[in-house]
Amino acid sequence: MTASYQRIVLASRPKGAVVPENFRLETVPVPELKEGEVLVRNHYLSLDPYMRGRMEDAKSYAVPQPIGETMIGGTVGEIVATKNPKFTVGDKVVGMLGWSEMGVSDGVLLRKIDTTHIPLSAYLGSVGMPGMTAWYGLTQIMQPKAGETVVVSAASGAVGSVVGQLAKQMGCRVVGIAGGADKCAYVVNELGFDACVDYKAGQLKADLAAATPNGIDAVFENVGGEIFDAALERMNAFGRIALCGMIAGYDGQPVAINNARVFLTMRLSMRGFIVSEHMDLWPKGLSELGALVATGKLKFRESVAPDLAAAPEAFMGLLKGKNFGKQLVKLI
Amino acid sequence: MTASYQRIVLASRPKGAVVPENFRLETVPVPELKEGEVLVRNHYLSLDPYMRGRMEDAKSYAVPQPIGETMIGGTVGEIVATKNPKFTVGDKVVGMLGWSEMGVSDGVLLRKIDTTHIPLSAYLGSVGMPGMTAWYGLTQIMQPKAGETVVVSAASGAVGSVVGQLAKQMGCRVVGIAGGADKCAYVVNELGFDACVDYKAGQLKADLAAATPNGIDAVFENVGGEIFDAALERMNAFGRIALCGMIAGYDGQPVAINNARVFLTMRLSMRGFIVSEHMDLWPKGLSELGALVATGKLKFRESVAPDLAAAPEAFMGLLKGKNFGKQLVKLI
Repeated sequence: MTASYQRIVLASRPKGAVVPENFRLETVPVPELKEGEVLVRNHYLSLDPYMRGRMEDAKSYAVPQPIGETMIGGTVGEIVATKNPKFTVGDKVVGMLGWSEMGVSDGVLLRKIDTTHIPLSAYLGSVGMPGMTAWYGLTQIMQPKAGETVVVSAASGAVGSVVGQLAKQMGCRVVGIAGGADKCAYVVNELGFDACVDYKAGQLKADLAAATPNGIDAVFENVGGEIFDAALERMNAFGRIALCGMIAGYDGQPVAINNARVFLTMRLSMRGFIVSEHMDLWPKGLSELGALVATGKLKFRESVAPDLAAAPEAFMGLLKGKNFGKQLVKLI
Repeated sequence: MTASYQRIVLASRPKGAVVPENFRLETVPVPELKEGEVLVRNHYLSLDPYMRGRMEDAKSYAVPQPIGETMIGGTVGEIVATKNPKFTVGDKVVGMLGWSEMGVSDGVLLRKIDTTHIPLSAYLGSVGMPGMTAWYGLTQIMQPKAGETVVVSAASGAVGSVVGQLAKQMGCRVVGIAGGADKCAYVVNELGFDACVDYKAGQLKADLAAATPNGIDAVFENVGGEIFDAALERMNAFGRIALCGMIAGYDGQPVAINNARVFLTMRLSMRGFIVSEHMDLWPKGLSELGALVATGKLKFRESVAPDLAAAPEAFMGLLKGKNFGKQLVKLI
């Protein structure tokens, strides 16, 4: 076994956009395991927009990522050494071991996973936190009925792609919003959405109106800003909004809802949520998502950065929408 | 009986702020009653912010007020002639007979009221639509627990004053926002709120922060704009917002929520509502409100314009916050 491994720590907090200097690649020795601990060799790291928020020290739902410590992040990997009777060398596990080739854990937050019918990396996407985020917002907040129109922004992404496919299975008309003709083609042709609006095409409002002739009944919002405003203008009475992300404001710029009166005139309801606060629903949701992935009924696409050193650039690209599907970093 | 009466019709739709020329006072003959109809002599007309929305023809929750017809409005009065066996001359009734000294009704939307322990005018305020609006938003959307901090804007008004008094009875810390030292003194000294912030004093954010040392758990929003933004900045995790009005935008100016990210970071929920869509709850709510008014546990204050001709000016004043308590027009 190697005596050292690489990790990436937060070197400094961003002032505006994230820059490479906010990260530092370090080589550290593999620690000696204590009783009850396991050593995990990570195969994939998940990159997700929420990490941008953790890089700030502003008041938020989570404690900030400490400077000088391993960047937070979800991982899948394999047990390579164990002093914990619950784990055997070779076990595949999902956990939160961060931007790091290896990690030591007491096992409490590690979950053993079965890769017989589901690829390892999917446990960071459709059958992991992004999938659960989609499942929660759709089934617990939006609760669309068959025939209703559902809109999801960042539609080709790890979360949006699941929202739309699940909503289609519920009998909804599903309209995605994504950046670029290639992403929109994928969303319609591969994922089966009814339509997808390319917000980079320059006529967002008109295109969204054309794609939602009966208005919008429920929105899964990942972006905020002008994309959310455009959706709000099309809302029907008693519309529901699951507020999952505001990637438009991750660099600190204020994100306004310019069209606030529509909440009143259309009697809308909106709820912001963090899926990790609803762990009681994860077994149910992951079981449904896993069955769909295993039987090919839930498709996904991945962008894979080749190694840990490539993670910062891949993360900065994610925040700008340069990824196409779930953004991962390959670590082995 | 008089052979004619006065009414006010919508003469034109406002372009920006409401002006006197948007209204026209007319004298019309008292019509002959048909079988099943009653003639009501109105004693009081209710003036309410929602009327401003009806003067527009924009897409909203209600059909626009037609040009040339009697302005919509809630009224209390007395049956003066009847060809409907369900009503007797002398019965006191509450209805929607508009800006008019008299009105003919088939009785369907008239409700007989008991003025033994509750003044007639209160059926347009604390024991009427404004009271129900407060009751619904507080009990169905905000659902505060004892010890939580509740904030209500337009706190001295017909709705806000009920929100705050009911929340006090639920054991909450209650903070009002109102315009002017006199209104704030009334809210604290007469209505029993824990504190009231005068938004006209020029330091809204600082004063609101001082009045909500433990943050804000639930908001009843009547105003929107910078007042709502200030409240949003103080929200605690899982805060609830009942969106009742956006008087800041009634003249057509856009009302933005500048601080939208807080919905995500604090996992807030917000719902806009129209109390007339929840008639199933009115018997329960009105029964509770009536008992509180009859026993002196729910206080209210009225601004009364002297006659129908004074209604337009009183209404324009209401939209600018010039009223103090429930705005009524005396018609007899």
